[in-house]
Amino acid sequence: MIPRALFQPEHEEFRRNVRRFMQEEVVPKHDTWEAQNQVDRAIWKRAGELGLLCITMPEEYGGGGADRLYSAVLIEEQSRAGASGLGFSLHTDIVSNYLNNFGSHEQKLEWLPRMATGEIVTAIAMSEPAVGTDLQNIKTRALDMGDHYLVNGSKTFITNGYLADMAIVAVKTDPPEADKGAHSISLLIVEANRKGFSKGAPLKKIGMKAQDTCELFFENVEVPKANLLGAAGKGFVALMKELPWERMIISIGSIAGAEAALENTMDYTRSRKVMGQSVASFQNSRFRLAEMNTEIGLGRVYVDRCLELLLKGQLSPEDAAAAKYWCSDLYCRVVDQCLQLHGGYGYMLEYPIARAYVDCRPTRIFGGSNEVMKELIARSMSI
Amino acid sequence: MIPRALFQPEHEEFRRNVRRFMQEEVVPKHDTWEAQNQVDRAIWKRAGELGLLCITMPEEYGGGGADRLYSAVLIEEQSRAGASGLGFSLHTDIVSNYLNNFGSHEQKLEWLPRMATGEIVTAIAMSEPAVGTDLQNIKTRALDMGDHYLVNGSKTFITNGYLADMAIVAVKTDPPEADKGAHSISLLIVEANRKGFSKGAPLKKIGMKAQDTCELFFENVEVPKANLLGAAGKGFVALMKELPWERMIISIGSIAGAEAALENTMDYTRSRKVMGQSVASFQNSRFRLAEMNTEIGLGRVYVDRCLELLLKGQLSPEDAAAAKYWCSDLYCRVVDQCLQLHGGYGYMLEYPIARAYVDCRPTRIFGGSNEVMKELIARSMSI
Amino acid sequence: MIPRALFQPEHEEFRRNVRRFMQEEVVPKHDTWEAQNQVDRAIWKRAGELGLLCITMPEEYGGGGADRLYSAVLIEEQSRAGASGLGFSLHTDIVSNYLNNFGSHEQKLEWLPRMATGEIVTAIAMSEPAVGTDLQNIKTRALDMGDHYLVNGSKTFITNGYLADMAIVAVKTDPPEADKGAHSISLLIVEANRKGFSKGAPLKKIGMKAQDTCELFFENVEVPKANLLGAAGKGFVALMKELPWERMIISIGSIAGAEAALENTMDYTRSRKVMGQSVASFQNSRFRLAEMNTEIGLGRVYVDRCLELLLKGQLSPEDAAAAKYWCSDLYCRVVDQCLQLHGGYGYMLEYPIARAYVDCRPTRIFGGSNEVMKELIARSMSI
Amino acid sequence: MIPRALFQPEHEEFRRNVRRFMQEEVVPKHDTWEAQNQVDRAIWKRAGELGLLCITMPEEYGGGGADRLYSAVLIEEQSRAGASGLGFSLHTDIVSNYLNNFGSHEQKLEWLPRMATGEIVTAIAMSEPAVGTDLQNIKTRALDMGDHYLVNGSKTFITNGYLADMAIVAVKTDPPEADKGAHSISLLIVEANRKGFSKGAPLKKIGMKAQDTCELFFENVEVPKANLLGAAGKGFVALMKELPWERMIISIGSIAGAEAALENTMDYTRSRKVMGQSVASFQNSRFRLAEMNTEIGLGRVYVDRCLELLLKGQLSPEDAAAAKYWCSDLYCRVVDQCLQLHGGYGYMLEYPIARAYVDCRPTRIFGGSNEVMKELIARSMSI
Repeated sequence: MIPRALFQPEHEEFRRNVRRFMQEEVVPKHDTWEAQNQVDRAIWKRAGELGLLCITMPEEYGGGGADRLYSAVLIEEQSRAGASGLGFSLHTDIVSNYLNNFGSHEQKLEWLPRMATGEIVTAIAMSEPAVGTDLQNIKTRALDMGDHYLVNGSKTFITNGYLADMAIVAVKTDPPEADKGAHSISLLIVEANRKGFSKGAPLKKIGMKAQDTCELFFENVEVPKANLLGAAGKGFVALMKELPWERMIISIGSIAGAEAALENTMDYTRSRKVMGQSVASFQNSRFRLAEMNTEIGLGRVYVDRCLELLLKGQLSPEDAAAAKYWCSDLYCRVVDQCLQLHGGYGYMLEYPIARAYVDCRPTRIFGGSNEVMKELIARSMSI
Repeated sequence: MIPRALFQPEHEEFRRNVRRFMQEEVVPKHDTWEAQNQVDRAIWKRAGELGLLCITMPEEYGGGGADRLYSAVLIEEQSRAGASGLGFSLHTDIVSNYLNNFGSHEQKLEWLPRMATGEIVTAIAMSEPAVGTDLQNIKTRALDMGDHYLVNGSKTFITNGYLADMAIVAVKTDPPEADKGAHSISLLIVEANRKGFSKGAPLKKIGMKAQDTCELFFENVEVPKANLLGAAGKGFVALMKELPWERMIISIGSIAGAEAALENTMDYTRSRKVMGQSVASFQNSRFRLAEMNTEIGLGRVYVDRCLELLLKGQLSPEDAAAAKYWCSDLYCRVVDQCLQLHGGYGYMLEYPIARAYVDCRPTRIFGGSNEVMKELIARSMSI
Repeated sequence: MIPRALFQPEHEEFRRNVRRFMQEEVVPKHDTWEAQNQVDRAIWKRAGELGLLCITMPEEYGGGGADRLYSAVLIEEQSRAGASGLGFSLHTDIVSNYLNNFGSHEQKLEWLPRMATGEIVTAIAMSEPAVGTDLQNIKTRALDMGDHYLVNGSKTFITNGYLADMAIVAVKTDPPEADKGAHSISLLIVEANRKGFSKGAPLKKIGMKAQDTCELFFENVEVPKANLLGAAGKGFVALMKELPWERMIISIGSIAGAEAALENTMDYTRSRKVMGQSVASFQNSRFRLAEMNTEIGLGRVYVDRCLELLLKGQLSPEDAAAAKYWCSDLYCRVVDQCLQLHGGYGYMLEYPIARAYVDCRPTRIFGGSNEVMKELIARSMSI
Repeated sequence: MIPRALFQPEHEEFRRNVRRFMQEEVVPKHDTWEAQNQVDRAIWKRAGELGLLCITMPEEYGGGGADRLYSAVLIEEQSRAGASGLGFSLHTDIVSNYLNNFGSHEQKLEWLPRMATGEIVTAIAMSEPAVGTDLQNIKTRALDMGDHYLVNGSKTFITNGYLADMAIVAVKTDPPEADKGAHSISLLIVEANRKGFSKGAPLKKIGMKAQDTCELFFENVEVPKANLLGAAGKGFVALMKELPWERMIISIGSIAGAEAALENTMDYTRSRKVMGQSVASFQNSRFRLAEMNTEIGLGRVYVDRCLELLLKGQLSPEDAAAAKYWCSDLYCRVVDQCLQLHGGYGYMLEYPIARAYVDCRPTRIFGGSNEVMKELIARSMSI
């Protein structure tokens, strides 16, 4: 395989620590978390203790002050471990960026340190039942009541939703009759204990069963104006700012997940015998494994190049969109093929490939469906 | 779509009854069965009461004396309904055929009537942990002790295994030192209550969660010689006899499942709006739906033609193998694409497409993996 | 393979004759025809002599009075032989149908008998340089001058264009200011020797090099009103009438071409040795051959079922569209894969697979591109 | 698109010159060359004059002393221009490397300077009719006659074969009874004017029609021992040395060819109207174009990364094999799809996409078929 050139020894040292954490402290509990449809809060605290949360945030706000390659390492190792229940990346790589990019000093001081310790868990609430990810048409409104906003509406598919102590909620701060579409969108920090804010039970999903995805409901929730994140009506622009990074998160996880699946399958097919020879020794297996190895190699090199550009602030949203769609497609293709090479055991949940099969599927849908990604790429091609 | 020409009014009448049974008596309970990893025994009795079990068996043994198109209707309607927990087809279309084809009059009298009423549930035990479906190398042995066989070994991936009152078990009736490979294989009827016969818990699978697939263990189980099904050493030949039919069962279910997924998705995408228009109205959706409609149409016509030949005893094992691999591949391709057209909701188990996604996957593996099917087809081409 | 059930002994007798004709009288000359970008006129006469032209036309007009299975046999055997230069099917199965369906007794008497003997060669002129197959917007006009039409415009991609003695030309018979779109389209019989009617040289194409496809130019061509085929303004409807059949022609040829490619490749790979074993014996080859065999089998069964319905007048345009796109896609996929299995020799024109490679490609484009077919199918699905 | 980071301003200056050369001096003559199945010798001289031949060879032997990125530029610009007739790369990037890597000072002095001026054209002769690229089993022998070798045998698929003034010929220098397989292979420099050395006519191919590929025949050809290149019996090792580079040549050309095809197609589909809108504006077109753009981007980044490693001597043969198979597959996939988006015009040779279609196909076969590449990758994975 093409050697990676992006990571320094300190990143690799960090990787070893994260890998140990995943293997020793996460994997053994994951079955239990899957059964209860949420992780234990203790794992958030433990991650905070180990400095795994908010690692790229400024040190003055409790973060690690590290570059995003540390986040990449975390995402990769979590994906390798199949620890799909952990909502760390959303918290660390997305919510904290919103706060850090658009929050006031007070807001940062209030939230980031407790996020870094794992004392609180956070979420982003954008999608809605009726409109999906078509943000311009969201129905959740925060009416300006002078000294506070009055929030009504509902959100769905909220990662970390059930455990969240706080959510950044995309709302419209203009009334329906003055709706300016995207220009009416604002971001509000809403604490989970506010009156009128309730949560649905974790959704029953194909996989990612330890991830507490749920619906959120807002019924006359009073939110102080100080909770506005960034300027009113500037929420849409804010949501755009980190799109390349948010798409890379999925791409990074997809490639690492595909690599892990391939490694597992190489091991399995080398040792599993049929008709007196190892499964890996059949030409069909060899070709499939060689093809997967090749495509994962391509994806890996591409993602690393994107990351290199991202670190310099030069990654375009459309190149990130290309990475997102292609890598998530590859991930699902690889896992499906690897499962097939496992034969009947591939369908049994005790095998990691079976977990990967149910866990990988939403990568082609969330973070903007792959169809949306293709639209964005096409648009950038002036066609 | 091309009209089907195979079914008569009486088959369609039967179809209406089965569809009603599935919708009213099976679907409402399926969630509960999934949670308990097995169906209730009562549904077997109810199916027997309605004449849905052993429908193609001779009337003198309690069967319905019907042609196999009735079985096809049952398989199609079960697949349409997503009732993946019901193990009727294995019982009705496979176990009963073994008994009817190779059993003595006494054996038929003993088992078939109670199978037809649903009083007992049956299974076939072939695959083993170490050798998979490589039958010639199975390790389970039935040593000839003069007046009985002494059975030792274990089996895995046994459909209906946990509920089974009786299993037809593939064993070797020659000792290791006189093993004649395929020619040592015999079929034994083993009752579940025999001493030394135990069952593992239902296996944790990706899907088909109401199907009580499990492992079976035989530890010095004494089985009377009268329980030998067919001649000693002729088990392999017996297992070959109904291969075309057994492959068609999977093909029939796959096409019906794909049809149901497409219908669901057409409904869903017609009503679901994004960016102000229905999902179905985007050209990408239209093309995907048109392609699926086309390929399902091809599969449907092919399967019906195979069935037509099967009824005349003219379907070759390799044409059935082709149907099995192509239709199951199609099924999975269709369900994956349909799920994608559902967006995030496709990943939620409350939608039938999500259930289909986890349930369809093993069709490419069981009944002989699709790779094995390709080998068989290649062999028939003299290459 | 699934046996075909459509053809009677008399069709098979006819097939033997056609196959002999192709092998003995066509194939040996095809290289020469390719070099000269047109077939010799003599082969048209010879085909007429053998009764291969206009075989489904009424006997009173010189036809064979046969059913369309004879046409299917001709198309299949021509495709098998790789005789892509022969424009018989367009002449026999399309032009003659227009005349027979919509022509007056006089028009039929004038044209059909000479078409049946091969004395004259005919074409259909629909596509135009600027509008492609978007018929409603064609620019070629036939202005009503009282006793005759004055035709101006040009046509492109005209099969048989260079040799044609007569072409049925789609024109607009309303002036631009009264253009009623599709309702202005009429069909005119235009003889090649009319003043102002000229032909471009045969187009330089990727393949089908013996087929004299060219452009046609009309500059103030006077055409008698008696040459109007069917009613004025009814051309579009007329063009629709035989669409299912016209799509089946491509489907039939595609499947037969794919079958021939597979047979060739089975022979080649059985005899060609690499690394001490036959190419056919590698598992990758075996799987590819088995997959192609399977898909050709599916296509074959589907096409025969469509033909069965067509003979009864029950084939829907959308099912024919499905056959057209799927079979032509399959054809190209099969030929590409077969070429690959030939290694370097597959790229050499002396091998039939290389000819097939360059000849098969337009089947996905002509007769309505496969994208257009998908649109039509989608439309029929009410999505 | 991800910016390329490998090329310096001097490479880009060189690129502009090469592009001008291709556009002004090559493209206008290519049709003529295709008709005559070979390029004019004058273009070789002209290329030599412009310093385009042997650009990476040491200056003392008449080369340009440049790094291989200059070769990459040449390959890319030739591929962009569709100048498939030019055999420069084989001569400049392969033959000259053999001489430079393994030749004596005298051999280099004798050949390289004239190769650099274009005075002589060279070829490599490895493949044989019976054994293909299975080098260990070649039949061409050079018997040691004391003071010279006596060469008998034949070679096929020899690029530059018809114009070649000299060929490096893979022979066995051991007699059949002492054949040591790969260890008997030696490389001989054979001048075209030696008695007994004859050439077949350029082969009739699907495309690459201006490339004078042909067979070579050796009948009792006396070759002086001084013409041995490297040590006797070391030919196989020598052939291995530059494999990564030779595979990169195909990869580089494939990506550049795919890029050109996509650019052409974007232009074409933007301007071509159907049903009142541009072809590019249909969602199906947009998605296809976006997918191709994405995959070409991935291939481009991967190839550049491979080149970066190659320049440092760190590219593994298997990573180069992965690049070769994936990029050539992509090239053919892209061209096929782009042709489809051209509709009927895509089949007409006057359009560059049609030329690309016939020219791209052998990239999946030559330089080691893609199946061989997969075998090599699998081997490197220890499966």
